[in-house]
Amino acid sequence: MGQSLISSTTFSQSLRHCQIPKSVLPLIQQNLLLPLNFTRGYCSFRSLEHGFPRIIPCATTPTRRFCTKSLLSEIPNEKRYSKVGAESTGPIPSKQLLEVVENAAKTGAEVVMDAVNKPRNINYKGLTDLVTDTDKMSEAAILGVLRKNFEEHLILGEEGGLIGDTSSDYLWCIDPLDGTTNFAHGYPSFAVSVGVLFRGKPAAAAVVEFVGGPMCWNTRIFSASAGGGAFCNGKKIHVSHTEKVEHSLLVTGFGYEHDDAWATNMDLFKEFTDVSRGVRRLGAAAVDMCHVALGIVESYWEYRLKPWDMAAGVLMVEEAGGAVTRMDGGKFCVFDRSVLVSNGLLHAKLLERIGPATEKLKNKGIDFSLWFKPENYSTDF
Amino acid sequence: MGQSLISSTTFSQSLRHCQIPKSVLPLIQQNLLLPLNFTRGYCSFRSLEHGFPRIIPCATTPTRRFCTKSLLSEIPNEKRYSKVGAESTGPIPSKQLLEVVENAAKTGAEVVMDAVNKPRNINYKGLTDLVTDTDKMSEAAILGVLRKNFEEHLILGEEGGLIGDTSSDYLWCIDPLDGTTNFAHGYPSFAVSVGVLFRGKPAAAAVVEFVGGPMCWNTRIFSASAGGGAFCNGKKIHVSHTEKVEHSLLVTGFGYEHDDAWATNMDLFKEFTDVSRGVRRLGAAAVDMCHVALGIVESYWEYRLKPWDMAAGVLMVEEAGGAVTRMDGGKFCVFDRSVLVSNGLLHAKLLERIGPATEKLKNKGIDFSLWFKPENYSTDF
Repeated sequence: MGQSLISSTTFSQSLRHCQIPKSVLPLIQQNLLLPLNFTRGYCSFRSLEHGFPRIIPCATTPTRRFCTKSLLSEIPNEKRYSKVGAESTGPIPSKQLLEVVENAAKTGAEVVMDAVNKPRNINYKGLTDLVTDTDKMSEAAILGVLRKNFEEHLILGEEGGLIGDTSSDYLWCIDPLDGTTNFAHGYPSFAVSVGVLFRGKPAAAAVVEFVGGPMCWNTRIFSASAGGGAFCNGKKIHVSHTEKVEHSLLVTGFGYEHDDAWATNMDLFKEFTDVSRGVRRLGAAAVDMCHVALGIVESYWEYRLKPWDMAAGVLMVEEAGGAVTRMDGGKFCVFDRSVLVSNGLLHAKLLERIGPATEKLKNKGIDFSLWFKPENYSTDF
Repeated sequence: MGQSLISSTTFSQSLRHCQIPKSVLPLIQQNLLLPLNFTRGYCSFRSLEHGFPRIIPCATTPTRRFCTKSLLSEIPNEKRYSKVGAESTGPIPSKQLLEVVENAAKTGAEVVMDAVNKPRNINYKGLTDLVTDTDKMSEAAILGVLRKNFEEHLILGEEGGLIGDTSSDYLWCIDPLDGTTNFAHGYPSFAVSVGVLFRGKPAAAAVVEFVGGPMCWNTRIFSASAGGGAFCNGKKIHVSHTEKVEHSLLVTGFGYEHDDAWATNMDLFKEFTDVSRGVRRLGAAAVDMCHVALGIVESYWEYRLKPWDMAAGVLMVEEAGGAVTRMDGGKFCVFDRSVLVSNGLLHAKLLERIGPATEKLKNKGIDFSLWFKPENYSTDF
């Protein structure tokens, strides 16, 4: 990497040169504030008191050369794993795009909240794939918001398929109800997930998660924009700092298609349950990725996902400081069929097991080509 | 069973004789109210509008002979599977015992809530078994409540072991922090679980579940007493009415001990993920059982549990109308090492797979004897 590693003490000394408030230094020296990031003109620290990042104004930004080993292992995600997010939000200002994506997700969530605890008309898609009226009504509500704001944009919805102008640089990926089975059973969590791509890469995202369950339903909203960080209920969030698989809590999903990839993931579930603190199985991809971004689990992976499952979640993880690849370790795009997201620190260690298992599937002839990319839609990859 | 099955119409007619309010009959005929139970001097119905039981005053209680097929399949749990709850709360009135058990669980939960989002000192018990200071502080707080109220009772705590007088008929089983791994990671859910046995059988129980997660922590309290029903936040709850495995949402757990039983449950996890709507893996036994009682999942099973994991949860399920056995289908007591709880309707179907798998373990010599029963403690089994 060509970057020198220095001790925490030296790091504190380098901070002194940056004129950060003197009152903060003892907290750093006592490890009550752990350095997180200092690449965007400020220093951010993880406060052990609150568990969430604390931003500290800093006249001079220290360069990456001045950082501890733990910092180094976190920062270079963009070097070790390709960035999946867009370079920017394109001609639409970040603030404006974020406002619409949040508004869209919240509008869908209002429909879902109305339906929670009410009788639901459930149909079948395959054996266990439920589609509810709520799903359709939520998508319609979201489409209404998008059309009102960006009539010319391309939209890919789980329910409605592709709508709009394929010559647009913007493609919206909508999951109006992620975790339909949980929703049908009243089991937390499920979510409304909206992600918008700029030339094929996630530029902004919002996920409204339904938490709690009967007697205490509640929501929280996750949002992120390319280069602007990830937030939960307006507070900046960061992936966890866990460095060892044996100290990690993981989560995975099993799709409706019970093919070889499904069986392989059963083996991975068993292997990782054996060596980690546990593998959760929650049943909502967007939610699982937001949980990685929030730092309450270290990693999530799944085969057989669709763009609307992933577009928002992967940006959330990346903007919260995590890493995103395919399950074979390859460069990820939202039209891929598998995803592995993590806190970054654990990515290589997880890939040691997940990568070869996925290669075996590829050698068996299992299809890992791009699932779907709208014809004529221009991308930067 | 020697009981005649009659149609819904005939059931409505039988209700007419019972002088239930005339306004209610059309709702029953339109299936907006589904008959639930009429064994305790009143008729209860599941209201499709609210999803929870509605009690209807009824001058004369119809006998079990007058009921529909769906009712029959629900009621006879106590015939098909032995009751695990105590006959009564013994010499202590039900109301008094419930008050103390709820107070104890809430007191422990206050300690846990204080600790949520705060730095936690974590030690190890084995590789992945975390014990936190919170665990110990919560148990101490609960013990304080119990000693103040029932100085002479016997107490079995996850942290403190056995305390008190073994000649007492009452044995309190305390899990001061069920789902420690989730707690350590800030991952919902976890719980404080308190169950009290009368002569070896659960007589009253309370579980405070922590839901939501960072940015939106919240709690709900489950409680039950022998013969008195199960409640969540003061509202009566009932297990689900799902009759088919392929329509069910299930949940299981994998303990810290990675033995043959652990491997067998991996196979069961795979089998049931294949044939149901999904198997969740949440990581907190008491919570999982409360979720069965609440009707948001149909069944939960796990090998290698301890009395404090199960004492409260099994009563909650039984009092919510569900069934409880060991995983080999045998009569359950809280000193056993495995449990299968369900909505009752699915119990036999689940045992078709779980039973033989467990028998195989027994034939292999895996220990399924009672895990622990305090010496000299008198029981009714």
